[in-house]
Amino acid sequence: MQRYLVGIDGGGTSCRAAVADATGRILGRGKSGASNIMTAPDTAILNMTDAARSAFIDAGLDADLVESAHAYLGLAGNNVENTVAYVLPRLPFYQSVIESDGLIALQGALGNGDGAVAILGTGTIYLARTGADVRSVGGWGYHLGDLGSGGRLGQMALQQSLLAYDGIAPQSAMTRAVLDEFSNEPRKMVAFSQAAKPGDYGRYAPRVFEFAAKGDDAAQAILRQSAAFIDLALDRVSEITDGGRLCLLGGLSALYVPYLSTRHQERLVPPVEDALSGAIALAKATFANMMDGAA
Amino acid sequence: MQRYLVGIDGGGTSCRAAVADATGRILGRGKSGASNIMTAPDTAILNMTDAARSAFIDAGLDADLVESAHAYLGLAGNNVENTVAYVLPRLPFYQSVIESDGLIALQGALGNGDGAVAILGTGTIYLARTGADVRSVGGWGYHLGDLGSGGRLGQMALQQSLLAYDGIAPQSAMTRAVLDEFSNEPRKMVAFSQAAKPGDYGRYAPRVFEFAAKGDDAAQAILRQSAAFIDLALDRVSEITDGGRLCLLGGLSALYVPYLSTRHQERLVPPVEDALSGAIALAKATFANMMDGAA
Repeated sequence: MQRYLVGIDGGGTSCRAAVADATGRILGRGKSGASNIMTAPDTAILNMTDAARSAFIDAGLDADLVESAHAYLGLAGNNVENTVAYVLPRLPFYQSVIESDGLIALQGALGNGDGAVAILGTGTIYLARTGADVRSVGGWGYHLGDLGSGGRLGQMALQQSLLAYDGIAPQSAMTRAVLDEFSNEPRKMVAFSQAAKPGDYGRYAPRVFEFAAKGDDAAQAILRQSAAFIDLALDRVSEITDGGRLCLLGGLSALYVPYLSTRHQERLVPPVEDALSGAIALAKATFANMMDGAA
Repeated sequence: MQRYLVGIDGGGTSCRAAVADATGRILGRGKSGASNIMTAPDTAILNMTDAARSAFIDAGLDADLVESAHAYLGLAGNNVENTVAYVLPRLPFYQSVIESDGLIALQGALGNGDGAVAILGTGTIYLARTGADVRSVGGWGYHLGDLGSGGRLGQMALQQSLLAYDGIAPQSAMTRAVLDEFSNEPRKMVAFSQAAKPGDYGRYAPRVFEFAAKGDDAAQAILRQSAAFIDLALDRVSEITDGGRLCLLGGLSALYVPYLSTRHQERLVPPVEDALSGAIALAKATFANMMDGAA
């Protein structure tokens, strides 16, 4: 009986799945909604199941074959122990391994070789591989980390707008535009902040880059400060990998490149494959012995 | 019939009340638990009532006289409209006015004259009075403001400890001590951060000052950055008051003085009276006509 590998790339806004044969050749792909196992684990399980079934259908296979699949899941929030313990037995697959979304991204971007990736999105995390050793740097989340992330950039844009409103900092086109979105009423912005998640702040991050490109002082100051944080984290993973390959991933990566130090710009390499391909490669490596036994 | 004035100074950790005669002479004082009208309005109402009744008893008066009193309440969270609308009709007093905790502090510290106060506690807010005009600067809360506040200082100490853990920033005695409180397990610190309120972070603020005094580089850097923010806000209120009197209040005020610019240090004045006395003075001014009519 043919056994199938499933790779899952699960994030806070969407979930992607691929199905592959035992050699790791991808046969089909599927997509579904958010799979945030920390904030909504049951929804995440449903969406991951949907995405996997869609991948089987895309491959021209019976969707019920998910139940015999060996799955490798790269998920944000995998470092919260209770969450993984809740999700793992509720997944529809024959065997499942939950690892970080960063690890599958690293695998996809750099294959089996040494090097480092920086994932610059709503949050930030850095991974460095030397031989069999993979170390993560950062990735502690919005409240105490994620410096330079989309969530933090958005928060800084709103914060700066309030400083400008109060006359503590100069007004700029950006601070006026941001305040204008709240009808120029700081109380509305404060009300927003009471319930805002990192992703809510992150929606303002692209605007910081837009205004900076137009020469906005406030936006440029925010990006200088944020890029300096990222430079320091890149220094750290470069130290671990002895200056090996470095790859930027995530929604903000292309936007950030011009603001990074030239010492990093010069050595950036493009990703070889995407995170989903990385998940399939790790599924193949993880389940190789088991699959041989079952063959 | 003698009419009484009540002043309330309500905060997130305790609530203080005073009762005065119609001339504003304080007859008794009382204290009770937290009165955070934003997060726990019913508890706040109970505690404010308790504190006021205790003040009447302290004055040798019947506690039920609170029902005939004219009360002036200085409360954090008074700028959240729905909250005030909920609390106001549920208070035990004959007449009540809810204003900000900042306003009663300003009145207590500077009396009726012009000048500015900075309240440096778990949060921060600045008030400037010129004639009849009182303007507040900052006070937008932890998420988007409160730069230099106890909440922010604590957050920075924890954040810096994680950067040191990752090798992105140098370790110091402070970063080691903070991490040690979480058993040197960043995940425990991250779990703390998921639910931490500004007051929870604020408990680490005094330690930042302690380590800075011992020459800790990380602690000193946090305080330099935070004091620079406060300097800018003080510049702003000094601009509004044309360099008038400036008074620092709040739990961190004395600790911050050595880190502020000398341009501010040199013109600091001590508070004339406390916030509760300010509340009574404002109660007297607010209810003067009404009391005359009732006399």
